[in-house]
Order: sequence, then C-alpha cells, then structure tokens
Amino acid sequence: MQTNPPQNVQTIRVELGPRSYDVQVGPSLLGRLGATLAAMKSVRQAAVIVDSNVAALHAATATESIQSAGITATALIFPAGEEHKNLPTYSRLMDSLLALRPAVDRDAVVVSLGGGVCGDLAGFVAATALRGLRWVQCPTTLLADVDASVGGKTAVDHPVGKNLIGAFHQPSAVLIDVLALRTLPARQISNGLAECVKHALIADAAGLDFLETHAGQLLEAQPDLTARLIAHDVAIKAKVVSADEREAGIRAHLNFGHTLGHAIEASVGLGRILHGEAVSLGMVAACRLAAQRGLISADLAARVESLLLRLGLPTHREGLDVGAVESIMQHDKKARAGRLRLVLPVGLGRVDVFEDIPPQQVRQAVASLGQ
Amino acid sequence: MQTNPPQNVQTIRVELGPRSYDVQVGPSLLGRLGATLAAMKSVRQAAVIVDSNVAALHAATATESIQSAGITATALIFPAGEEHKNLPTYSRLMDSLLALRPAVDRDAVVVSLGGGVCGDLAGFVAATALRGLRWVQCPTTLLADVDASVGGKTAVDHPVGKNLIGAFHQPSAVLIDVLALRTLPARQISNGLAECVKHALIADAAGLDFLETHAGQLLEAQPDLTARLIAHDVAIKAKVVSADEREAGIRAHLNFGHTLGHAIEASVGLGRILHGEAVSLGMVAACRLAAQRGLISADLAARVESLLLRLGLPTHREGLDVGAVESIMQHDKKARAGRLRLVLPVGLGRVDVFEDIPPQQVRQAVASLGQ
Repeated sequence: MQTNPPQNVQTIRVELGPRSYDVQVGPSLLGRLGATLAAMKSVRQAAVIVDSNVAALHAATATESIQSAGITATALIFPAGEEHKNLPTYSRLMDSLLALRPAVDRDAVVVSLGGGVCGDLAGFVAATALRGLRWVQCPTTLLADVDASVGGKTAVDHPVGKNLIGAFHQPSAVLIDVLALRTLPARQISNGLAECVKHALIADAAGLDFLETHAGQLLEAQPDLTARLIAHDVAIKAKVVSADEREAGIRAHLNFGHTLGHAIEASVGLGRILHGEAVSLGMVAACRLAAQRGLISADLAARVESLLLRLGLPTHREGLDVGAVESIMQHDKKARAGRLRLVLPVGLGRVDVFEDIPPQQVRQAVASLGQ
Repeated sequence: MQTNPPQNVQTIRVELGPRSYDVQVGPSLLGRLGATLAAMKSVRQAAVIVDSNVAALHAATATESIQSAGITATALIFPAGEEHKNLPTYSRLMDSLLALRPAVDRDAVVVSLGGGVCGDLAGFVAATALRGLRWVQCPTTLLADVDASVGGKTAVDHPVGKNLIGAFHQPSAVLIDVLALRTLPARQISNGLAECVKHALIADAAGLDFLETHAGQLLEAQPDLTARLIAHDVAIKAKVVSADEREAGIRAHLNFGHTLGHAIEASVGLGRILHGEAVSLGMVAACRLAAQRGLISADLAARVESLLLRLGLPTHREGLDVGAVESIMQHDKKARAGRLRLVLPVGLGRVDVFEDIPPQQVRQAVASLGQ
C-alpha cells in the first residue's frame, strides 16, 4: 500500500495544537482515502456520508478504496439539497450510523464525501455520535474545497436561520481531489471562486491579480491552476483559523461578504441562489459601503465588481427585498446585543470589523444591488 | 448585590485549563443564580431548561433570581422522565430557544435546573446552539450533585443505547443547592449515594468509613453532612476529570459499576430501575468478580454489599435477564473492537481496567445478582 503522497500532491498543515491536521490537494486523491484512514490509529470501520447526487458519482471509488485498505466501509446516503441540511436528516443519519453492524465504537471514522452541505451535516454527526468520532473530509465542490475544508465548523440549518445548530469539530484529515471538479457545472465553479475573491480581499492582495490573470482557465477548472488556487486559498484560511479557532477575533474577517450574503440568501430563499452568488452580492454591497465611507477607493470597488462579473458571479439582483434582508441581518448569530457587526475592506487585502455603521447606510448599499 | 459567597458555601475548582470552573455547594444557592450569571461576561439573556416536575418546585426561584440581576430569563419546560431524554425533545427545546425574543445571541446562557436527565439534555442544547453557548448547571438531585455536576458530559439517549448522541461541553459554573434535596424522595437520595460508594471504592478508602458512620443521617439528607459529602465527592471527581477530560485514560475508572450497571438498566427497561440502583447491582457484580479472581478479599466484597443495603440500595434483582445484559454490554460505547472493558476493584479505594475477563465469569457474576 502506498503511504507517501504522490509528487503532484500539495500538503497544507492546519496548525491547531492537538487538533492539527493536513489538507492534501491533488488529482485522484479519492483513491487514496483508504490509505489515509489506514494511516490513522486503529481504524476498522468507516461510515461514508454522501448525498444522493454525489453517491452516484463518487461513492464506489471512496468505499472501494477504504475496503481495499482492510477497513469496513458503508455509505450512508441522504437526499441532495440544502433543504435537507436540518435536524430531521441529521437524526436519520444518526439512526443509520448507530444501526451499523458491527456496532460503531469510538474508533470508527466518519467520512464526508460531497460539498458544503454534506461536510456540515456529516461533521455534525461526527461531532456528536458517541460524544465525538474522528472524521475525514473529502470535499467535491470548489466551494467546499476552499472554504469548508478548513476550520472545523459543522452545523445544520434551523427554520429560524442557517447553521444555528452545530459544533466546532476539526477533521483528522482533508483530501481535496481536484479531478472531482470535472463533474461540476460551471455555475458551481463560479460559486467557489466567490470565496477565492473573498480570501484575496481580506488577506492577499496578490491573489486578486492571479484571479484576474487566469479567470478563463479557472472557470474551466483547469486541474493544475485550480490545484494551485485551492492550495493557496486553503493556506490563507488555515492561517486565519490557526490564529483563532473559535472565532473570538480575527476569524471574523472570514465573514466578509457573509453577514450581508447570508441575509440575501435567506431573503431570496434556499435553493434559489447559490451561497457564492449571495456572497458575491454581499461583497459588492460591502465594497460600495466601504467606498462611500472612504475606507477604500471607488476604483478598487469597481475592480472587485468587474472581476466578479468575469468569474460568472452576480453584482446585481433584480427584485431584492431590502426590508427582508435588513430584518434577517438583525438575527444573524454573530450579532451581539442586537448590534450588527460588519466586515468591510479598508484597503486591498485588508479588512476590519465595524459595529457602528448606521443602518440607513447598510440599507442603501443593499438597495443598490437591486437597482 | 452580594457577590462573595456566604461563609457556609464550599467552592471546588475543576481545573481544565481555559475551561476551568467552580462548583459551589451550600444552602439556598438557587437564590444566588442571578448573581452568578451577572458575574459572567456580558450576559443579558438566560434560558432555564427544566422538566415539568422541577419547574413546579424551583423554576420561580431561579428565574426571579436571574431577573433581579437585570438579566432576561425564560423557563423552557420539557416533560419529566428519562424517556424524554432524546433527539425529539432536544429538537423541541432548540425550537423554543431559537424562537426567544429578543433572539438568542452568542452571549446568551443556558441554565440547567434539575437532575441528570435535565443536565444532559440542557448541556447538549448549550453545546450545539449557535455552535456552543455557555451554560450553568443547577443540579437538584443528589445523583446529579455528585456525578453529572463535574465533567461536562452532555448527551441524549438513542433507541440503540443510552447517551449515544452528545458532546463534551464544560459548564461555566455549577451551583449545588443542598436545600433542594429536601424535596427529594428517600429512594432518590439512595440513588445518589450509590455514586458516593463508587467514588469511595475507586479513589478514597476513608470515604467508605464516612458513609458507614453517617448512613442514617445521609439518608435523611441532613444538610451539613450532605454538603460535606457532596463537596468531598465533587473534589474526587474533579481530580479525575482534570487529569483526563476526554476519557482517554484514568477517567475510565469512573465507569466502575457502570458498564454492568448500564446494561442492567437497559435490560430492565428505562424507568423501572434507577441509575444508582443499577450501578449498585453493577458494583456488587464487579466486587464478586474481583473477589473470585483474587483481586480483593471476600470480606471487602461483603462489606460493600452490606453498606449498599444500609444505604437503601439493591444487591439482588429478581428475574434479571442475564442473556439480555450480556448482549447489551457488547454494544457498550466504551467497548472497542467488540472487546469488553471492565473496571474492577483491586483493593480498598483502588480500581483498574481489565480487557481480558472471560465472558463466562462475567455471566456468572451477573447471574449471581438474580439468585
């Protein structure tokens, strides 16, 4: 059995003390899932949590790889779609997991195989089954590759809001198979690129150049360039998360575009806009607000909008319900004492947290998206 | 507002690095709940999770104390009974919590007011609402006082087994009001004393003398002696948990009497035997097994049985289904690779973990309980 990663695999260490782990990025990594599990301590059983769409594409590769390493593997399949990222689905997955024979014990490992919804759900199952099982993340979308693969946030949605029920639970390993992106529709690639723009804006001025230079090839998920982008973005996020695992401080910068984006997503309705598209709109509004307050130049705001458009992302949304967006933001779980915390750019590659933005300025920026 | 504890309050520090907290033991501490919350950082809202029985006795005292400290307090009531310690009840409590107005934010605190079921359930809600809220435990049974008040184990049951879904989530503070025990029936006092016998047997030879000397007064919950006992037992458990928060090693000693006890409890059926009663039977079987293997003297085993009887606890159970107990033990979540791990006494105040006990010896010890 091969245990050293092949040469075209990049490894990024997420430093979190005893909870540190490696993220591997490269081609055909799903086939190395079994070797990865075998390298962990006393793994005899794995439950692969996967949605009905991804199961058809990748479940066989994953379970066969695990089984060929001498580890029992069972796929637990849930219906695809974010509307299933909730407590009822969690409860049914838990039923299936606890019904496995031989019975799962504390050495069992949960594998998440899929996009962000799958990772959040499977991670929350892992966080809470037997008070915490180890888990390995195999993201299969660009969005999950560059975002959910680092940080250990797990959650399900609640009718009151997204991600309101969950836990911090770091994975033991993350395998990002860039060839899995070949099965993704173009709109899903754009969806992930929105987070790459975010990373560039919060921490990496040079990243914006890279995205502008290679926009066309990245939209086609050209494997080498995409692997470079993913590894780069994972490293940026890993650095932020290492400095602030529980989001007490600097990790809040990762919410750039998200407080507004989540509210836009919720106001439009789950499934009617992709997360990255909502974040794109959120970043546009945040940049316009920042330009209006003199935090960044109007040129930088325009440059960001132009890049988002080239990456197939929206900068405008017909019929946006500004009142609904505002009211949802009031219930954002990062709000404290009813006070909205907004992350705004203060330069290229730099953001800051603001708690004193007048509501009418926020409203105006949101309204500009619908005009 | 009084912020220093009155003189007749004992404080035990549970040392867990950044997750350290104080357990206070004394009379009328429920009335100090508000002051305790006010001393924590930026608490403006508290949700008091309480079952329908305890709500009638203590909810008003708790919520009034909180409100008089200028903090919003709402009681979230669930139906009494361990059969409600499950995901559906958890889900309904989460619905109620997330429906509160003003909306809960990350500064909100969950208060658990009740016995072990309430603590496990409320703690799991706190562990997973908004990816983790702070919580304060106010146990109201002797069992919860000496057991669940230390260690941060939270969980709900699943049809497959007890406590299979949960998380480690340390409370911010624990208030043990010994006067709350006045409302407990005698059988519930005995229920808690079983864990005190356990602590004596695993770590505290002198504790057995104390229980033997004061058995009568302890059964009547005499406040001063009971407070002394609780503080002593909390300190023992705190020491074990500090050394091994996640139960990777020595914390397993606390499972003395529990692997067998849980299986007995499950075989008899929830609600038909109390936890402490099942643990009493588990300890009797473990002591008999240990005596048979020459780990302890037959005299010590007999001394333990005699004390348990004086404390109103069972050493015998008519009609115990030995086959069912055995089969349930196979699915104990502490089993690894199908191998049963048993904690057995190896002297007075000392136990050890054994993985090599022949099944027929275990069967014989369990069968002896029914003869």
